[in-house]
Amino acid sequence: MSSVVRSEIRSGAYADSIVLMQLQSALTRLPGVIDAGVVMGTKVNLDLLASSDLLPESAAAAGADDLVVVIKAESDEAAEGALGQIDSLLARRSTGGDSEHCPRSLAAAIKARPDSNWVLISVPGRWAAGVAREAVDLGRHVFLYSDNVPLEDEIQLKQEAASKGLLFLGPDCGTTIVNGVGLGFANRVRRGAIGLVGASGTGLQAVTARIHELGGGVSHALGTGGRDLTAEVAGIAAHETLDLLARDPDTRVIVLVSKPPAPRVAAGLLSAARATGKPVVVHFFDFAPPAHSLDNLHFTNSLSRAAELAVELIEGGAEPIAKAEIAGGEHRPSHLRGLFAGGSLAVEAQEGLRPFLTPLHSNVPIAGVERLADPTRSQGHTILDLGSDELTVGRLHPMMDQQLRIDRLRQEAADPQVGLLLLDVVLGYGAHPDPAAELVPAIEEIRREHELEVVAVVIGTEEDEQEISSQIERLTAAGARVFRTVTEATTYISRVLAARRPTGGTPVALDVLSSPVAAINVGLETFYDSLTGQGVETVQVEWRPPAGGNAQLTSILERMKG
Amino acid sequence: MSSVVRSEIRSGAYADSIVLMQLQSALTRLPGVIDAGVVMGTKVNLDLLASSDLLPESAAAAGADDLVVVIKAESDEAAEGALGQIDSLLARRSTGGDSEHCPRSLAAAIKARPDSNWVLISVPGRWAAGVAREAVDLGRHVFLYSDNVPLEDEIQLKQEAASKGLLFLGPDCGTTIVNGVGLGFANRVRRGAIGLVGASGTGLQAVTARIHELGGGVSHALGTGGRDLTAEVAGIAAHETLDLLARDPDTRVIVLVSKPPAPRVAAGLLSAARATGKPVVVHFFDFAPPAHSLDNLHFTNSLSRAAELAVELIEGGAEPIAKAEIAGGEHRPSHLRGLFAGGSLAVEAQEGLRPFLTPLHSNVPIAGVERLADPTRSQGHTILDLGSDELTVGRLHPMMDQQLRIDRLRQEAADPQVGLLLLDVVLGYGAHPDPAAELVPAIEEIRREHELEVVAVVIGTEEDEQEISSQIERLTAAGARVFRTVTEATTYISRVLAARRPTGGTPVALDVLSSPVAAINVGLETFYDSLTGQGVETVQVEWRPPAGGNAQLTSILERMKG
Repeated sequence: MSSVVRSEIRSGAYADSIVLMQLQSALTRLPGVIDAGVVMGTKVNLDLLASSDLLPESAAAAGADDLVVVIKAESDEAAEGALGQIDSLLARRSTGGDSEHCPRSLAAAIKARPDSNWVLISVPGRWAAGVAREAVDLGRHVFLYSDNVPLEDEIQLKQEAASKGLLFLGPDCGTTIVNGVGLGFANRVRRGAIGLVGASGTGLQAVTARIHELGGGVSHALGTGGRDLTAEVAGIAAHETLDLLARDPDTRVIVLVSKPPAPRVAAGLLSAARATGKPVVVHFFDFAPPAHSLDNLHFTNSLSRAAELAVELIEGGAEPIAKAEIAGGEHRPSHLRGLFAGGSLAVEAQEGLRPFLTPLHSNVPIAGVERLADPTRSQGHTILDLGSDELTVGRLHPMMDQQLRIDRLRQEAADPQVGLLLLDVVLGYGAHPDPAAELVPAIEEIRREHELEVVAVVIGTEEDEQEISSQIERLTAAGARVFRTVTEATTYISRVLAARRPTGGTPVALDVLSSPVAAINVGLETFYDSLTGQGVETVQVEWRPPAGGNAQLTSILERMKG
Repeated sequence: MSSVVRSEIRSGAYADSIVLMQLQSALTRLPGVIDAGVVMGTKVNLDLLASSDLLPESAAAAGADDLVVVIKAESDEAAEGALGQIDSLLARRSTGGDSEHCPRSLAAAIKARPDSNWVLISVPGRWAAGVAREAVDLGRHVFLYSDNVPLEDEIQLKQEAASKGLLFLGPDCGTTIVNGVGLGFANRVRRGAIGLVGASGTGLQAVTARIHELGGGVSHALGTGGRDLTAEVAGIAAHETLDLLARDPDTRVIVLVSKPPAPRVAAGLLSAARATGKPVVVHFFDFAPPAHSLDNLHFTNSLSRAAELAVELIEGGAEPIAKAEIAGGEHRPSHLRGLFAGGSLAVEAQEGLRPFLTPLHSNVPIAGVERLADPTRSQGHTILDLGSDELTVGRLHPMMDQQLRIDRLRQEAADPQVGLLLLDVVLGYGAHPDPAAELVPAIEEIRREHELEVVAVVIGTEEDEQEISSQIERLTAAGARVFRTVTEATTYISRVLAARRPTGGTPVALDVLSSPVAAINVGLETFYDSLTGQGVETVQVEWRPPAGGNAQLTSILERMKG
C-alpha cells in the first residue's frame, strides 16, 4: 500500500497535552488516514516521529515551541483533507462543563474558595514555576506535578515555602496521599499507621500498594519530587515532610524511599530520620547502607521488602527509641581516627560511618570517602588500614607486630582535633599472642594525657589462645569501650560524632495532615476529576499561558476548553 | 633531653620481617638508646621514620632494597655503640631448633614428606611468585600469604593451578580454615555446616568468629586473596572454592564475603552461587544488591548480619532449592527490552538485573549501567523510563497515555534480537482508566507475530477503580506473565536470561576438604608454630632468596637462621 506523509507546523502556541492526545486520536480516525502525530517539536519528539516514519522533511526544522501535526495517509487528498480538518476537529471538542464559571486565575480561585489549602499544578514546566510562586505567595501548600521545571526555580520556591511553613511537593511530584486523599497518581489504600516520604513517585505507589496488599495501612505518603535529594536542592521537602511525620501522632512507622540521594543529603536525612526515634524503614535505590539496622533505622534492598518490613514493625509493636539513647549524650565536635589491622574491618568501618561523618578519609577509601594524600598523616575523620600493602613492605603484619600502630595511636592522640580513637583487636592463630599486654599501657597513657575516648572492636572466640574474655576485661579496665562487631562500634560512634545540620525553615503546622483537603487545580483536568471523585472540594482554574503564542491556535485551543 | 640520630644503610639484602622486628627491639633496649628503627627503605617506611623523628639526612636517600637502621640516642657514643652492635645482636639470635635438618628447597621438602598436600608461602612478595610456581608445578595446593605479588603472576599462577585442579588461595590471603585447620590468621571455631568463601581476610575472621559466638559452626572457610574478584583475575579462586563448597556434603549453607568485586565478576559469581542451589548468604562491601533475597541468594549489609543470617538459615533447615527452579528451563540467548511508565520501577528493574545482564542499557542509567546513546533506539538489554523528562515535553505521562509505549512495544518486538518484553502497569487515581484494554490487543498481536515472552508488573490494589484482578486476568489471558512486584519480575527474568560464564579449569577433587592437612611452610616461622600447635604435620623450609643481595648481610642473616 502506497502512502503519503504531510505535515503542518504552527508556531509558538501553548497546547495542553490532553488536547494534543485527543487531536491525534481524532485525526487517526479520519477516512484514508493511516497514522497521525501531534506533538510539540522537541528534538526527542521529532526523533520519535522519525522512528515511526512520520517525519517528512517539511517538519524536520520545527522547534520546541512549534506544534507539529503529521498525517500519513493513503493519498494526497486524504492527507490534505485531514490537515484541513484540524480546526474543526479542535472546535468539536468541548468539555461542555461549567467552565464559564471557572476562575481564570489562582488569585480569583482562592478568593472564591478561601478555605482551599492545597494548590495542584500540572501546567507545562516552563510556566509551572510562575503558578507555583503565586500559590506560595498566597500561603498555600503546593503539589507540583509538572516536570521540566528549572532547577533554580525549584530551589528558590522550596526555600520560600519552607520559610513560611508551607509544604512544597515537587516539581515532578507524581504521588502523594494526604489525610486519605490521593494527589496526582495514587492508589486507594487502607488508612493505618505507616507514614511515607518519597522522592520517587511510583516508588511510593509500589510501597503503599504492597502495604495494603499485606493488610497494613498508610497514614500519609508525601512526595518530594525527584530532584529533592540532589546536592543542589538538599532535601528541603524531604526534611519538611519527615519532620511532619515525626510529629504526627497517627504515624508509628516511617518509610523513606528515594532514588539515589546525593551522599551529603543522604547523610543529613539519615541523621534526621534517626533523631525522630520512630522506627524508620529506609530504601534508597542503589545505595550500600551503613548496616542492616542502626538504632531505629532499618535498611532494605527493594520496594517490596520495604513494605513488608514496615508492616512487620507495626505488627511487632513499633515502639519508638528513647531520644537519649540515640543522641548519645553530649555532642562533641571532634574527629575520629580509626587504626585498623584488619583491612576488611577498615572497609566495614568506612561503610558504617560514611553516611554520618563527612568528609571521611582513608588510605583504602571506598566510594564517597576521600583518599588520604599521605598515609602517614591523618586528616579530619580518618580510617586507616595499617595492614595495607604499601605499609607492610619488609614489615610484619600489624596483627603480629603492634609497634607501628602503638606509635600511631600516640601520634593521633597528640592531635588536639582528635576526640575518639577506634581500633580493632583480632585474635586467633597467627596473631599476636597477647595484644592487650601491649595496647593497655598505651591506652592508659593516652587517656591520662588527653581527654579522648578509645573504642575497640575485638574479633575472636573464647577458644582462641589469647583468651578473649581476658583481652576484653583488660582493655575495658584501661578505659576502652569494647564491642564485638564493627557495626556496634560504628553505630555508637555515629551516635556520638554525627554532624547534625540545622534544618532552617519554619516547621509546617500539623493540621495539614488532619484538615480536610480543599484543592485548587491548575492544569490537567484528569486531576480535577480524580479529586472530585474522591469527594474533595476542588476548584478548576481556567488557566492559559501568560500572553505569547500563536494567536489563531490559541483562540482555537480556548474554544476547545469552552 | 638532647638526643642524636645516627643511621646505617646496608644495600640490597634480603631481610626476614621477624628478624627486622627483633633487631629493632634489641637495639631499643641498649643503654643510652631512646628509639630505633629497622626497616626496608621504601618511601612509606622512610615517611614513617620521619614522622617519628627518626630520619636523619644520611638515611633519606635509601632505596626500597636497602636495609635502614636508625638509632636515636642520648649521645653520639651511645648511638655509634648501638650501630656497632648490629652484627653481634643479629648473631645472638638463633632459633636453636633443628633447622640443620630443615630442607633448603620446596622440592627437597616434598621429597622428604611426599604426603604434604598444602604449601604455605609467606616470603616477601617479590620472591613469592617463584616459590608458588614451584608448588603448583609440584602439584600442591597453595596458601599464599605474601602481599606485594605482581598481578600478572597472580593471574598466571591461578590459571595454571585451576587447569590442574589445584586450589590457589592468595596472594595476600590472610585467612583459611580447611578441614578444621587454620592457615594464616584464623580463629578457633566449632565445626559445623556453614562454609565460607572470602576475598577478605578479617572479613572471614569476623564472620566465622561471630558464627561461633552465636552457637553455629563452620565446615570450611576458604580465602581467595584480596585481588581475586578484580576484573583482571576474574574470580578464579572464588569460583573454584564456591564450586568445592557446592559439592561438599558437609556444607549446607554458604557465605560469600568480599570487598567490592568488579561488576562483571560479581555478576558471574552471583550466577554461580545461584546455580549451587544451596542457601548462599552474600555480603559484598559497598554493593547495592539486586534484592533482599533472590531464589537461594540472601543479601546482607554487614559482616555480623551475614553470620546471624547463616546461623538462622541452618536453624531453619537450610533446604537447597531444586536446580530446575533456578535454571528456569531452557536458556534463551536473547535480549530484554523493558518499557516502563514508572521511573522508580525502571530504576529498581535496573538494580535487580544489573548483576545478571551485562551490559545493560538505559535512558536513566544507574551506576554500572550504560547510557543509551539515543532514547528512541534500544541496544542489547535495555530498560527504558518512558516517563522521563525528555520524553514527556508536551505529552501526557505514559501512565495516562499509553500510545507511545504501545508503538515502542511493536518496535521492540520487531527486533529479532529481542526475546523478552517487560512492562509495568500502574493503576490508581490519575492513571489510565483501563490500561489492559489497550495493552491486551498489542500483546496479542506481538505474540502472534513474534516468538517472545511478555512480563508485566502490575502495581495497585483491589480498591483501585481499574479493578486489579480484572487487569491481571486479561493480561494473563493475552499471554503475559504477571507479577505484583519488580523484584519477582527481575528474579524471573534473571533466571531465564542471565549469562552463565564457562568456568574453565579442572574441578578440584573433594578430598582436599576431607584429607588431613599436611603442610610445607615457606616463610614466617610463626605459621609453622601455629600449624604444629594445631597438630598438623608441617615441614619448615629453610628458604632464602635466590642469589643476589648484599653478601655480608646475607651471611649474617643466614647465621641468625642457623
